[in-house]
Amino acid sequence: MKLIKQLPGINRRAALLSSLAMLPLLSASLPSTYALAQARDPLPSWNEGATKASILDFVARVTTQGGPDFVPVDQRIATFDNDGTLWVEQPMYIQLAFALDRVKVMAPIHPEWKTKQPFAAVLDGDMKALAASGEKGLVEIIAVTHAGMTTAEFEKITSDWLATARDHRFKRPYTELVYQPMMELLAYLRANGFKTFIVSGGGIEFMRPWTERIYGIPPEQVVGSSIKTRFEMKDGTPTLFRLPEVNFVDDKTGKPIGINEHIGRRPIAAFGNSDGDLEMLQWTTLGARGPRLGVIVHHTDAVREYAYDRDSHFGRLDEALGAAAVNRWTVVDMKKDWKRVFAFD
Amino acid sequence: MKLIKQLPGINRRAALLSSLAMLPLLSASLPSTYALAQARDPLPSWNEGATKASILDFVARVTTQGGPDFVPVDQRIATFDNDGTLWVEQPMYIQLAFALDRVKVMAPIHPEWKTKQPFAAVLDGDMKALAASGEKGLVEIIAVTHAGMTTAEFEKITSDWLATARDHRFKRPYTELVYQPMMELLAYLRANGFKTFIVSGGGIEFMRPWTERIYGIPPEQVVGSSIKTRFEMKDGTPTLFRLPEVNFVDDKTGKPIGINEHIGRRPIAAFGNSDGDLEMLQWTTLGARGPRLGVIVHHTDAVREYAYDRDSHFGRLDEALGAAAVNRWTVVDMKKDWKRVFAFD
Repeated sequence: MKLIKQLPGINRRAALLSSLAMLPLLSASLPSTYALAQARDPLPSWNEGATKASILDFVARVTTQGGPDFVPVDQRIATFDNDGTLWVEQPMYIQLAFALDRVKVMAPIHPEWKTKQPFAAVLDGDMKALAASGEKGLVEIIAVTHAGMTTAEFEKITSDWLATARDHRFKRPYTELVYQPMMELLAYLRANGFKTFIVSGGGIEFMRPWTERIYGIPPEQVVGSSIKTRFEMKDGTPTLFRLPEVNFVDDKTGKPIGINEHIGRRPIAAFGNSDGDLEMLQWTTLGARGPRLGVIVHHTDAVREYAYDRDSHFGRLDEALGAAAVNRWTVVDMKKDWKRVFAFD
Repeated sequence: MKLIKQLPGINRRAALLSSLAMLPLLSASLPSTYALAQARDPLPSWNEGATKASILDFVARVTTQGGPDFVPVDQRIATFDNDGTLWVEQPMYIQLAFALDRVKVMAPIHPEWKTKQPFAAVLDGDMKALAASGEKGLVEIIAVTHAGMTTAEFEKITSDWLATARDHRFKRPYTELVYQPMMELLAYLRANGFKTFIVSGGGIEFMRPWTERIYGIPPEQVVGSSIKTRFEMKDGTPTLFRLPEVNFVDDKTGKPIGINEHIGRRPIAAFGNSDGDLEMLQWTTLGARGPRLGVIVHHTDAVREYAYDRDSHFGRLDEALGAAAVNRWTVVDMKKDWKRVFAFD
């Protein structure tokens, strides 16, 4: 960056060149200039150690032109799980918190819910009865809270909720419960020419309204679970109406399928935190030529966030942790590797 | 571009800046530099007239910063149908030509096909019998030629076919049967900050291996029809196996659904050529705020290409042509509006 600013008479271009948007392209062609910009630590919220080193080393290798591990910019695809990898997933998935709140908002026009499960459990705040309703109960809740409106209406409902809802423990909007080290990692990868994607079991339309603002990831780079929609012309206006029918579940084996469907090429780096991410990490790192990076965020910090793995209901991590050892994936020990967890820490 | 090249001592950056890849970013911030680059006609294969003017005018309006119709770069989404809009779709869809050729290649290991429809019709070159087998026959042909292998194997099969197959009329590889005016249009839109997507009824994995090379459109910006896949670990290697089961049909009402699923926001410009594109153009242009461009390519040139519309089996254009008049979509009269059709003309 400095190099450019020293040149006289090209102020407008200098301003342009120093914008973050240019970094991906610059990094590919101007290693020396880029090295200057990176003299500052690109991952200040990560403690020094093997974990941080493995990430920095990978990025250095794939971006070193002429090096044995160089990867052209257009193939630098990185995929990130969302719940538990980019933001908090305890005490329950944030989207589930939305669905439960939504049941309460809708209850006045559904008096029958007072005595009908799983809705009565939600209205009574009876988490045990809710859990007893199982997956069938959950699907019913998703159907009434996520379907029966147009895509535009659903976007407004979720955006309004996110603007006002607060997490009970941290007393903050959910969009502040994103991990600061991962925000730095997203920016660092993009600054090195990576295209960053979300590949989440969460609802694709639940995430898209805010991923660009919060993560710098535009809607077209968000892959997630979805329900079916129906196209209709209503009074000359085209609408997509959300139907109570599952279209795609972007979890476990669904993740490589979703990656193939949406991105159409294999990532060279993938980041997850649970068994739901196992197949995405396999698809990214195994049986492929060239350097690959697989990373698992292990929640080990009960004080600053949560500590959980194999016994957790949300974000269960067991098989993928075993696979990490076998496949040399990087395991982030949140307590040890992260200097801070949230931007507000 | 000239302005930049005159500056001494920054050859590497100059080379970088003059690359086409930078134009989208430049155009947003450097109207004066950009105006220089655009002094040459950006659409040289388009004849002057109302059609060309409507496209140039739309792009000028959405890129004029401070103007009433300005659209920020991240919202400049343009979607293109493929068959009949970017490349030839007569005398049959090119993907169908692939499927029929593939049946012939596979015939030796399927001796039963000699007497079994629709395969016997394909092997005998009996197009009438093939047509009589209807959609059911077509689905059977797609199932045996497009499923039963991994995604990597299918990519190799289609790439090998495209490298050697020749169109009967033009005696050229199919990838040369792309419309030169549309190639200029794609580049022109990207130079003006647009992100260009394909939204085609064709198979998503049939297109992706070559869209970047031929159209400059990367795999992740290709939306199409698809079959289901199954993730499997085979001897430690992850694979996606293609199943003989339809996943998504990206045609008619499927186009806005596919756009919503893959892109997650509405385009501001859409380009099609048949009734299969009607709903995409509606979704793009109707009931939305701000400037919108809908374009229909009308095949009117039997000498240089083909002339067809409402009576055609492939690329039928009837209802969408009526809607074009009502909704003020631009209709390209291929014979009148295109100076040349193919790069080899």
